[in-house]
Amino acid sequence: MIGNVIVGQSGGPTSVINSSLAGVFKTAKDRGAKKVYGMLHGVKGLLDKQYVDLSEKIKTDIDIDLLKRTPSSYLGSCRYKLPEIGEDRETYDKIFKILDELEIKYFFYIGGNDSMDTIKKLSDYGLIINSDIRFMGVPKTIDNDLAVTDHTPGYGSAAKFIASTMKEIIRDGLVYDYPQVTVVEIMGRNAGWLTAAAALARGEDCEGVDLIYLPEKVFDIDHFMARVEEKVGDGRSVVVAVSEGIKVEDGRYVFELADHVEFVDAFGHKQLAGTAKFLADKIGAAYGVKTRAIELATLQRCAAHMTSRTDITEAFNVGGAAVKAAFEGESGKVVVLKRVCDDPYMCITETHDVHQIANIEKKIPLEWITDDDYVTMDLIHYIRPLIQAELSPIMVDGLPRHLNINM
Amino acid sequence: MIGNVIVGQSGGPTSVINSSLAGVFKTAKDRGAKKVYGMLHGVKGLLDKQYVDLSEKIKTDIDIDLLKRTPSSYLGSCRYKLPEIGEDRETYDKIFKILDELEIKYFFYIGGNDSMDTIKKLSDYGLIINSDIRFMGVPKTIDNDLAVTDHTPGYGSAAKFIASTMKEIIRDGLVYDYPQVTVVEIMGRNAGWLTAAAALARGEDCEGVDLIYLPEKVFDIDHFMARVEEKVGDGRSVVVAVSEGIKVEDGRYVFELADHVEFVDAFGHKQLAGTAKFLADKIGAAYGVKTRAIELATLQRCAAHMTSRTDITEAFNVGGAAVKAAFEGESGKVVVLKRVCDDPYMCITETHDVHQIANIEKKIPLEWITDDDYVTMDLIHYIRPLIQAELSPIMVDGLPRHLNINM
Repeated sequence: MIGNVIVGQSGGPTSVINSSLAGVFKTAKDRGAKKVYGMLHGVKGLLDKQYVDLSEKIKTDIDIDLLKRTPSSYLGSCRYKLPEIGEDRETYDKIFKILDELEIKYFFYIGGNDSMDTIKKLSDYGLIINSDIRFMGVPKTIDNDLAVTDHTPGYGSAAKFIASTMKEIIRDGLVYDYPQVTVVEIMGRNAGWLTAAAALARGEDCEGVDLIYLPEKVFDIDHFMARVEEKVGDGRSVVVAVSEGIKVEDGRYVFELADHVEFVDAFGHKQLAGTAKFLADKIGAAYGVKTRAIELATLQRCAAHMTSRTDITEAFNVGGAAVKAAFEGESGKVVVLKRVCDDPYMCITETHDVHQIANIEKKIPLEWITDDDYVTMDLIHYIRPLIQAELSPIMVDGLPRHLNINM
Repeated sequence: MIGNVIVGQSGGPTSVINSSLAGVFKTAKDRGAKKVYGMLHGVKGLLDKQYVDLSEKIKTDIDIDLLKRTPSSYLGSCRYKLPEIGEDRETYDKIFKILDELEIKYFFYIGGNDSMDTIKKLSDYGLIINSDIRFMGVPKTIDNDLAVTDHTPGYGSAAKFIASTMKEIIRDGLVYDYPQVTVVEIMGRNAGWLTAAAALARGEDCEGVDLIYLPEKVFDIDHFMARVEEKVGDGRSVVVAVSEGIKVEDGRYVFELADHVEFVDAFGHKQLAGTAKFLADKIGAAYGVKTRAIELATLQRCAAHMTSRTDITEAFNVGGAAVKAAFEGESGKVVVLKRVCDDPYMCITETHDVHQIANIEKKIPLEWITDDDYVTMDLIHYIRPLIQAELSPIMVDGLPRHLNINM
């Protein structure tokens, strides 16, 4: 019999992070794990001995299927960075003591950049104290900014939601016979992968987004205004996709520009208008056209009712692959996705040294961004397979059913 | 053979307004209409002789099925109010001349309050000049604020999207182990029907929304802040649903309060923060908790990927019933929905004099709003049947496919 397993989730939620949890749980049980614990609120919760025996929560195949369709982190999450080992060994000793009490032999952590940092430090510390616990990272992030892996689980579903929603916003935006400008703000402070997914909207049945602005390139407001004016001048309605993270040449975020005017609310609290709102207001003031600012906001990362089956399956598989690798003796690694063929799309999992992944940010190659404020077909071909196919929600009484650890 | 038919769409789009168009088109063709024209951009486009022969656009059953799943107004829309008959007969003469040129005998207009006003005036004018053209209104509006009808087509799908999305936002909002306040702003300037749909999120698998504020009741900021403080004080995360239209006692919208501080952007353009943003910032400043403001924005009215099959079927049926009634000689009427049974839910169509519907706004009865900032089970029982069942999008290459009149 294999020893005990513990799994945690960390960082910002995604629509499919629980599919990875399902992958870890089911594969560990199938492969003979005695107990599979779930830490609540990640490592931070573990430090407070907050955990559950997952077999008491996930009892049936329908529970597994609900879990795969439940957005956000089933186990709760945290934003907690472990101290440097040299600075604070106490925290590490505490964690390893708790793991020993639970007779843990395998530790899995599902998360993005910061969470991979946790795996790196714990496995490093494990080596120092000669622990036989295996540590594996399971990648997730809607931002798709992890190094080495072809893409991250969570990105495909967010991209599918963004592209679908853009198609709907475009239909809505072109309905009147006078020009109207819609500016849609999409997540991504430093990497434009999510915003680039707006390009998928264009097709046989859709005019598509007119302009796309990504944080990888300096944002030139005058150029932007001229491009919008040019299109509005033709009497056309325009839909623009912008990353929340676009910056002007001096390094300020666009949403910080609104701040130039004294905008504090009644409580002295500085308010920042969003990027889209700032640009939409500027366009409205300059050209007298009707404008709308839309922030896709949190919906991008939790719209579990519109996931990519490709993504949800890969999310399950990276969880399962992490278990397989750990049970076979690997540690200090992250499971990554490797695209072995573009057409037909095929992706396999591999494991990779966590030191080469943690804390590194993957951006869009500049050659995938065009001079006319759009993206190349190469970028579209890269994203398209990741949004394919659906996993329908399980609908109960008109609404998608989730699995809730508290109920 | 029956004479020619013309149909138009007007006002703000919904996810299912094209299902009503499909209902008018298919029923008119099935019942022997010679030609079915579609006016482009409603009556305003008609005045410019903008119309299409719909048989040249909607050719197959698959086109009908795509049309039912296409958000926004397939024919384009307008925001145009006909002049009073006494003030400007020219406009009316022009419209009737164009209708005569096209040999129109039946005129259908799909829209909300303002559009019903158009039907009222055109049918009144028809009586004055002794025209034999039949005028029928087909109701739509996500706002559910039309009089007489049990509910409006479009509302059920918007309610389903709102409730589904709230469930996802709640999962996302409760993920951390420290309190976080999420304020979600939902459409509805004067009527709270859409915001009330947030109450459907609560159930066996979901904690639900904590507080709901509707425009039917005066919004007391001090009371609101106290309620939030009470919940946050327990260390809980809180999710609040607010109508964009909530007003304080002196009659100002909450989003106008931010305006007290000099907030003009660099162009002298007055910016209004949204209701949710204003309240979230106020909570953050007062209690030092993390807050998020989410506006569901346009997505509420165009999320065709998450429609209620009940709604989409009823939308089709009101279109068809309008045709049947007109072909049987009725005019100056609106098709309304009448709930004949609650359990099992059954709704039939009737026709009703447009004079008793146009320009009247239906609000939520005050007895359906509770003193503890929530809604009653009566209101939930009223909404619940309207969100039942799904009509899956037709997915092509990973995205919902639509029917586009321009492509």
